[in-house]
Amino acid sequence: MNNQITVIAFDADDTLWVNEPYFRETEEKFAGLLEDFMPHHSIVAELLKTEINNLPLYGYGIKGFMLSMIETVLRITDGKVNPAVINRAIQLGQDMLNKPIELLVGVEEVLKALHGKYRLVVATKGDLLDQQRKLTKSGLDHYFHHIEIMSDKQEQDYQKLIKHLDCKPEEFLMLGNSLKSDVLPVLAIGGHAVHIPYHTTWVHERIDHTVEHANFYQVENLADVLPQLIK
Amino acid sequence: MNNQITVIAFDADDTLWVNEPYFRETEEKFAGLLEDFMPHHSIVAELLKTEINNLPLYGYGIKGFMLSMIETVLRITDGKVNPAVINRAIQLGQDMLNKPIELLVGVEEVLKALHGKYRLVVATKGDLLDQQRKLTKSGLDHYFHHIEIMSDKQEQDYQKLIKHLDCKPEEFLMLGNSLKSDVLPVLAIGGHAVHIPYHTTWVHERIDHTVEHANFYQVENLADVLPQLIK
Repeated sequence: MNNQITVIAFDADDTLWVNEPYFRETEEKFAGLLEDFMPHHSIVAELLKTEINNLPLYGYGIKGFMLSMIETVLRITDGKVNPAVINRAIQLGQDMLNKPIELLVGVEEVLKALHGKYRLVVATKGDLLDQQRKLTKSGLDHYFHHIEIMSDKQEQDYQKLIKHLDCKPEEFLMLGNSLKSDVLPVLAIGGHAVHIPYHTTWVHERIDHTVEHANFYQVENLADVLPQLIK
Repeated sequence: MNNQITVIAFDADDTLWVNEPYFRETEEKFAGLLEDFMPHHSIVAELLKTEINNLPLYGYGIKGFMLSMIETVLRITDGKVNPAVINRAIQLGQDMLNKPIELLVGVEEVLKALHGKYRLVVATKGDLLDQQRKLTKSGLDHYFHHIEIMSDKQEQDYQKLIKHLDCKPEEFLMLGNSLKSDVLPVLAIGGHAVHIPYHTTWVHERIDHTVEHANFYQVENLADVLPQLIK
């Protein structure tokens, strides 16, 4: 890997800790609340439709997901729903906000090994308070020089981050589980990116082509980056 | 005013643009939806109770407010509500998210006069995407060196901000409409603060004592700070 790298940015959800499986679990429970109205997979599809539709207005994160669950209940049931179902959907969202943090394999080892050798940064989407709370719960915050909670991860968002960190694109390495959000925009602005696939990826984050680029690396586990970064 | 000041941070809601009156208007419309169940003032009080209760979990901003409206509907009506009322509450929140920006008097004049002479910063609470969108809509973003959207405005939050801006507390001046959030914590960490009262203040932001401090200034309009800052 390029030895110009000075800043390493980590995605958080499904890179440092478990996240997406909680959404999938919650969707299943949510579909269970409405099974008198529709089959499970149709409910999940309706919820996704609502989420995608609301993304420009609400952004990423659990609060927007909760509002989309409620809106989906009202639409699917055509307003003929026991309001207790809506209460239950709110409870499902609050349970997500209160989940403990489950670190992924190798995370602490990697941060410990890189700390002091590179400037380490978190670059994550989601609700501001929720992501800060997760970072605090994770006990990892002391490894990081800077935490950037981003409303989106497009090229211009990374450009702002890099400017803010006062580094050049070729000094910047992003690690994450989403090709769409953590890899492609970073490569496009001249940075380096490592993809660490996670077994569960939100359909909105998937892309249908492979990535080939001189600054792109794919590893199976986070710890696989260490031999290249510590020489 | 102290001539050591190099950074001027502006609160956004009800300092740069109108915000709190939209919440008050929305509360009135919300209470109107439930007037068969309770008098207006009791509904507004119930909503406030829900909001305060949810603040630690949801943080500040409109999405949390929407979730609190929905929860309040369910509680007040003991689940005996036409689900259309919940749809209407969601619509009220979405209307707030889509409001145009109405700048307060003197804002543009003040930013223009201070720009280039000080590092200008926005320091605001609220939902990440919503505050970024408002700043873009305002057309003011080019005046600012940095935008900080904060999950809270306690002393430690300002300490982080000041560290991040790489300035000393005595070089930092905060301008805002909330004594509780924009003034007291900044004075406590050694900074300077100007209070510009706004006619509407959320009850959660009110304090019941007066402030006296060598680094504290109160003005009627934002533009009143200019004679002291430009000599």
